[in-house]
Amino acid sequence: MNAEILCVGTELLLGDIVNTNATFIARGLAAMGINLFYQSVAGDNPERLKRALNIAKDRADLIILTGGLGPTYDDLTKETVAELVGKTLVMDQPTMESIEAYFKKVNRPMTESNKKQAMIPEGATVFENHWGTAPGFGVEADGKIFILLPGPPREMEPMFQASVVPYLARFNDHVFVSQNIHIFGMGESAVEETLRDLMIGLTNPTLAPYAKDGEVNLRVTASAPTEQEARAMIGPVIEQVKERIGDVVYTTEEDSLQAALVKALAAQGLTLATAESCTGGLLSSRIVEVSGCSSVFHCGVCAYSNDMKEQLLGVRHKTLKQFGAVSEQTALEMARGVRKLGGADIGLSTTGIAGPEGGTDKKPVGLVYVGISSPWMEKTIQLNLSRGQWDERNLIRYLAASNALNLALQAVKAKPGTIT
Amino acid sequence: MNAEILCVGTELLLGDIVNTNATFIARGLAAMGINLFYQSVAGDNPERLKRALNIAKDRADLIILTGGLGPTYDDLTKETVAELVGKTLVMDQPTMESIEAYFKKVNRPMTESNKKQAMIPEGATVFENHWGTAPGFGVEADGKIFILLPGPPREMEPMFQASVVPYLARFNDHVFVSQNIHIFGMGESAVEETLRDLMIGLTNPTLAPYAKDGEVNLRVTASAPTEQEARAMIGPVIEQVKERIGDVVYTTEEDSLQAALVKALAAQGLTLATAESCTGGLLSSRIVEVSGCSSVFHCGVCAYSNDMKEQLLGVRHKTLKQFGAVSEQTALEMARGVRKLGGADIGLSTTGIAGPEGGTDKKPVGLVYVGISSPWMEKTIQLNLSRGQWDERNLIRYLAASNALNLALQAVKAKPGTIT
Repeated sequence: MNAEILCVGTELLLGDIVNTNATFIARGLAAMGINLFYQSVAGDNPERLKRALNIAKDRADLIILTGGLGPTYDDLTKETVAELVGKTLVMDQPTMESIEAYFKKVNRPMTESNKKQAMIPEGATVFENHWGTAPGFGVEADGKIFILLPGPPREMEPMFQASVVPYLARFNDHVFVSQNIHIFGMGESAVEETLRDLMIGLTNPTLAPYAKDGEVNLRVTASAPTEQEARAMIGPVIEQVKERIGDVVYTTEEDSLQAALVKALAAQGLTLATAESCTGGLLSSRIVEVSGCSSVFHCGVCAYSNDMKEQLLGVRHKTLKQFGAVSEQTALEMARGVRKLGGADIGLSTTGIAGPEGGTDKKPVGLVYVGISSPWMEKTIQLNLSRGQWDERNLIRYLAASNALNLALQAVKAKPGTIT
Repeated sequence: MNAEILCVGTELLLGDIVNTNATFIARGLAAMGINLFYQSVAGDNPERLKRALNIAKDRADLIILTGGLGPTYDDLTKETVAELVGKTLVMDQPTMESIEAYFKKVNRPMTESNKKQAMIPEGATVFENHWGTAPGFGVEADGKIFILLPGPPREMEPMFQASVVPYLARFNDHVFVSQNIHIFGMGESAVEETLRDLMIGLTNPTLAPYAKDGEVNLRVTASAPTEQEARAMIGPVIEQVKERIGDVVYTTEEDSLQAALVKALAAQGLTLATAESCTGGLLSSRIVEVSGCSSVFHCGVCAYSNDMKEQLLGVRHKTLKQFGAVSEQTALEMARGVRKLGGADIGLSTTGIAGPEGGTDKKPVGLVYVGISSPWMEKTIQLNLSRGQWDERNLIRYLAASNALNLALQAVKAKPGTIT
């Protein structure tokens, strides 16, 4: 079975929004082992939508559409698909009731046009929408499968997981299970070089890398008659990878460095405080992204000026004068200072030149120091994060925060008595 | 002239990366007044790429491709396009030299396969790549225009601005100029309702809204023989909009709330300090995104625990006990405390329940208080930022930070003696 994603919406053609729906669905299909050969986007124009739909029907077995299920006159996806496959739209009573219930819940009046959303092609399988009003559905016709989903990601994503994955599983006699190996501190080409024989040699499970925002992710995907069997096949591959590059694998479970760090801190009963200069709160913000961080994260200080570094964090005037704010000495004193201030086990700091202004020959844009202070480890690392790229201030800040998170994770693992 | 964007890359079909290139180019085309009717994505597979390219050639006058210009064997976009239009690839000497210079600059060895990147279809206009190795180019054939750009956004985006915009301007006898009116504190449907007559009535300039992350953006686009004439046509439309909804227009110049705030603070010689609970550093991080913020931003404190709110910010124990951490009283004391701590003119605070845990009947997920303290204004606002959506912790945090930035901007404007 090969698939095409067809996203409908003039706002995509105007560049007003980024098409994260295509990415989300693509990832979901890959996880199910369904080949995706094309993605396309058409606007809210019935003629051009029909043309795109015909092309998709011609080259794919499964067509997943998003958008154009709203209540207004320019929402035409449902009508266009129904016409193409010769199905009549009929009122679906349970859907009608759940739309009424939704409006009652959010305390807003239901309009006549919302009733249009309860019309479904005859014989379709309805996907309930608990996050908005437009239901999705799947319909089989002319030997093809059409799946229609609402456009807003906050409705589409949970509906895909709750309804589309089980719906499509019916067409698959195998289940696909994926697990990610997250790597920090080794570039994509080095990872590929080290593991090339596995990547080429393995067919089930498969092993595929991708790089993103300074990290490398290795996805292990196994296919088997049952989920349990598939999971059992993944474990040994993860072990093989860890044997070779275990020191740069930061997690095989969590989604992000910050989630892995929060989990590791909680497991050891350790607490953290952060002191930031160039990252300016991005480091603490990424930690606070993780629900439940409050048990391990005490406080963060963003001391952007030298005065604040002295006053709040106790960095010595002499240190700032002699070595400058961007120096390993300052990074270390910031980490020590915030650890004391927050009464935490670990103090973590960043200081650097994010640019585009402020660089010198000796201290160029991209120079960042990360510092850590704990009873069992004190350390600073020097980074040069500039890639000579356009508009890289926020990339430098992001990578600085990532390096700090990774250093803290290493410190937790290095704590005497810790079993990793 | 109508266009199609065709992005090439298996990583897009696997959902490994989000297709921000399509969004960026779509926006650029809209700004030039070029109709974009379709976007499509194909993988690194020559047969399917050729098929997608034929469809694009059939339905569009201008085809913009991204990706597949790299040095490796699976980078085939250039070869496929050249074959389709019957052009030979020839070595471009200046490109060869600039690739050599690039490798010298980044101090990495140049490989044989990089030489492939200097091969260009005969008669093409080369777009120099100052941010990587693969040049882009434009080529006219069979009455169509093909534009090929590298895949990495950090190469594609500056190349589009520096080379593609001027290249395409040759085909246009008019220039298009856009300016954005940024709105905070009024929903998209309310903006549409208030300005519907203008949106429908105006044809040049046009006025079009889009909503994103809790803000509404109105784009005014004028077309005229010269840029100066186009700019002159935009001004009166902005004035008309401001007359009606000027109180919610936060800027017509900057890109973001944080950029508008930093500029307003700098213009008044004012300084700011932030105290965050639920936003956890996101507020300060957004301010530090703005280059040059150091002259106005003193410090930020992320006091996630009650202890830290007392100890660092001087929130009274009694206040926390009587009203709780999520209360207008705590928000105000946090703002006062950080203002004093940072020696700043304005103290700005957030405290709330970002969820998914921690909500109660009285204080549900999404309840946020924003506080401000300055010599001329003290105020708190209560927000309910939950939309009952899936996975909204970070949306709530983002909207809380946006509301804080907007409140600070209002405070700067409200300072006695300020001319806005």
